[in-house]
This record gives sequence, structure tokens and C-alpha cells, in this order.
Amino acid sequence: MTGSLTVIGLGPGDPRWLTPAATAALDAATDLVGYGPYVGRVAERAGLVRHASDNRVELDRARHALDLAAAGRAVAVVSGGDPGVFAMAAAVFEALEDARPEWASVDIRVEPGITAVLAAAAKLGAPLGGDFAVMSLSDNLKPWDVVTRRLEAALAADFVVALYNPISKARPWQLGEALKLAGRHRAADAPVAFARAIGRADEAIRVLPLAEAEMAATTADMATLVLIGASGTRTVGGADGRRFLYTPRSVGRMP
Amino acid sequence: MTGSLTVIGLGPGDPRWLTPAATAALDAATDLVGYGPYVGRVAERAGLVRHASDNRVELDRARHALDLAAAGRAVAVVSGGDPGVFAMAAAVFEALEDARPEWASVDIRVEPGITAVLAAAAKLGAPLGGDFAVMSLSDNLKPWDVVTRRLEAALAADFVVALYNPISKARPWQLGEALKLAGRHRAADAPVAFARAIGRADEAIRVLPLAEAEMAATTADMATLVLIGASGTRTVGGADGRRFLYTPRSVGRMP
Repeated sequence: MTGSLTVIGLGPGDPRWLTPAATAALDAATDLVGYGPYVGRVAERAGLVRHASDNRVELDRARHALDLAAAGRAVAVVSGGDPGVFAMAAAVFEALEDARPEWASVDIRVEPGITAVLAAAAKLGAPLGGDFAVMSLSDNLKPWDVVTRRLEAALAADFVVALYNPISKARPWQLGEALKLAGRHRAADAPVAFARAIGRADEAIRVLPLAEAEMAATTADMATLVLIGASGTRTVGGADGRRFLYTPRSVGRMP
Repeated sequence: MTGSLTVIGLGPGDPRWLTPAATAALDAATDLVGYGPYVGRVAERAGLVRHASDNRVELDRARHALDLAAAGRAVAVVSGGDPGVFAMAAAVFEALEDARPEWASVDIRVEPGITAVLAAAAKLGAPLGGDFAVMSLSDNLKPWDVVTRRLEAALAADFVVALYNPISKARPWQLGEALKLAGRHRAADAPVAFARAIGRADEAIRVLPLAEAEMAATTADMATLVLIGASGTRTVGGADGRRFLYTPRSVGRMP
């Protein structure tokens, strides 16, 4: 008897952003595997076994999910946002490289979700109107010089840059360093957005000039998506004094 | 009487990927504005006025939508995928720069959607497991040398690269040129995915070695999302001989 493994994106947290396909996949599951807070977002029901784990054991969690599926269970591996963006999907395929014979017939699928950068952009206006780069600022899985080299390349080529995992207790200085580096490629008043917990009760959005953002780096946390504008990114006024952040679609010749 | 304007992402086409928030926004609309095929995706109902236009008049369409909202209508501007990614949201804010007094009190919102690169990635496996760059290959709104400079920067820094708008009748050679350029930064057998019409009846996915992809460039079309792997992007086998494309999360020191 062979089971299935579906890696599911729960979106940023607002249930109105959970796709019907993701809901259907959750409804069909017998087992729920994931980081505790994400498992906690899915309603309990009879027949659904919950396997919550901490945040640091992605490969073990992926192997556990494959084992459950190989034993005939319908396993849902849950991630916040989109499971393919700095989340569980890659870990599942990395685990699959072990090629254990009992995993060979597991039916594996991925259900996409609204990832943080799309949710943040929608709340801000349209900051992704031009080309953009999406990076994890964590140096847990890649050397810091790879992070800075990529960041410099994206900034120099005038991409909008979205930073996931900008800061944590174990990585307190990296965001400040990244924003300092941004200062070499952007004006001091270039807009930087800190979009925290988008779609959740404690949602908080700030747009700061780059120079201020660098000073405020330590006020970000792991729930914050940081967006560094391109040279053309600007604000425009809306109703009730609101300012929208957007990047014009057209680009002139670059300097 | 002041109305509202909501820019809504319809996702890639599969209705199971339309978020409940987008559905609610569509249900609340009195007027539907957008490119014909996207307007066509929304079911007709009494009380919903449809304003379909062709694909080349984004700013006019945005102004029309703002005028309707200023006249008190509840306007839904629809885009495929996510409205902030090479779609209508930026055009609305560009139009708003005109600051016409009658637009000043229009309530503007953006509803995110599953953008093509997330849907394609989910169908392929987890090719976005590392850092990635998202670009429009169209040189309608930016000079071709900006396109190539950004593409080279992203490839050299070993981002996975997603190309929107890869080819059209008016732009027949740009994708071939872009893949040729990729050959300077990636091995000839580096995986390139052509993911066409994801989530729709005519969905078609191919993963080709870069050298073959370059030869096959003209088989892509405007409905195709092209994904160029990073140096680490690889395939792993699943059930029934299926191969998944994924990018390992860990990166070693770069050359």
C-alpha cells in the first residue's frame, strides 16, 4: 500500500489567502508534518495525526514524511507562504536523493501558496513592478560571501531585492550589513520596506529611507520581509493620506 | 459617492488556485476591467459590467478603472497570476501619478495571486530552493541592454532565473539570445524548464539541457515561463519514472 506526500503552502497566515487546492489537499491528509506554528494553523479533526517539529530539522522531517507516505499514509507537509521558496519542498527532494527503495512509489506533489514577497508587495502597492530578486539572507546554508556577492550583483543590476530570513537571534548583524551594502548602490533616500507578519493580527508595515532603515535593522525579526527598492521605486499618494510604494514598469537606459 | 478599485490576481488559470480573498473581491465588484482573456475567466452575473480590452493599453485601462471608481463603482481590475508581477498593479499606480482630484478618494487595494513562477516551480518540484531572480524578457518597456545586463548579473551570481514574457511575434529572437548568454555562465547540460499554460487544459512542461533549450527557443510562446537553473539545480527520480527538478538549499563556496 503506497501513500502520498503533498508539500503544501499555507500562505502568509490570512486564511483568505489559502488556495482551495491547498485546502483540498489538507482535507485529504491523514498526517500533518511541519514546523509547529504551521501545523498549528491547520484545524484539528478526527483522523488527522499531527507531527509538529521544531524549525531546525528540515531533512529529518522530510524523511519522516516520506516514511509515513511509504507506509500508506496521505501526508501533508506544511510550510508558511509557498513551500518552494525557502521552505520544505527542496528539503523533500534532497531527502529523496537517498533513493530508499520503500520511497520509490510515493506519489509526491507540491501545492503552491502566496509567498511573503507577493503578500507584502500587495499591501505596499506594486513594488515588484520591475524585475526583482528574491534571496534568503541566512548564512546557515550558504557562506556569507555568497550572500553579499548575490546581493551586490542584484543591486548593481538595479533589481528590486526581497530579503527573506533577514535576522534572527543567532544572526543579528547580517541585515545591517546588507543595508549598508545597499547604500553603495542606492541613494540614501531610496525606499526600503519592512513588512512584518503580513496578513496576521500583528501585521506591521514600515517604509523607510535606506539610511534610516540601516539604523533600524535590528528592529526587524524573522517574521519580517525586507524589500529594497530599485532606483526607480517611488511612492504615490492615495486616499486618506496613504502612500503606495511602486516600481514603474518602464526603465530608461542604465547609467 | 466614492468607489473602490481592487487589482486582483486570478492566478495561473486553475480556479483551485484562486484565493478566497480574490473570489470575495470579485463577488463584491460592480465592474470588471482587464485584458479580454482574464475578464473571460470570471463568470458572468447580473450586476457585473464587463470592460474587456486588448493587451497593449495598460495605462488607459488603469485610468478608465480609476474613473469608474471615482464615479462610485466597485471596480475589479483583473490580471493573470499575481497583479504585482509584470501585470496591472504598477500601471494603476503609474496612472495615479496624474493625481486627478476626482481620483483622490478612491479606495485602492491589491489582492495577491499565485504567480506563474510559483505554479511552474510547484509542478516541476522545487527549482526555487535557492535564491532566484524574476525578469521580464520583454524589451517593450526597457532597453534590451538593460535586459541582458540584468540577466548576466543574475546568472553570474548563480541565481535561478525565471523569465516572463519570453517571446512573442514581435520579439522572436530575444529568448534564443538570452539562452545563448546563459551558456556563458552555465554548463551545456544545465536544466532549463519551459513551463507552458500551467494549471490550464493545455499545460505542457519540458525540462531540457541548456544547449537543447537554446535550439528550441522558438517553440516557447507568451504563455511559457522559462526557468534557467542555478549551477546546483538538478533532477531526482520519483514514482513512475518521474523526474523532479530542484535546487538544493545549501550552497558551497562559489568559484
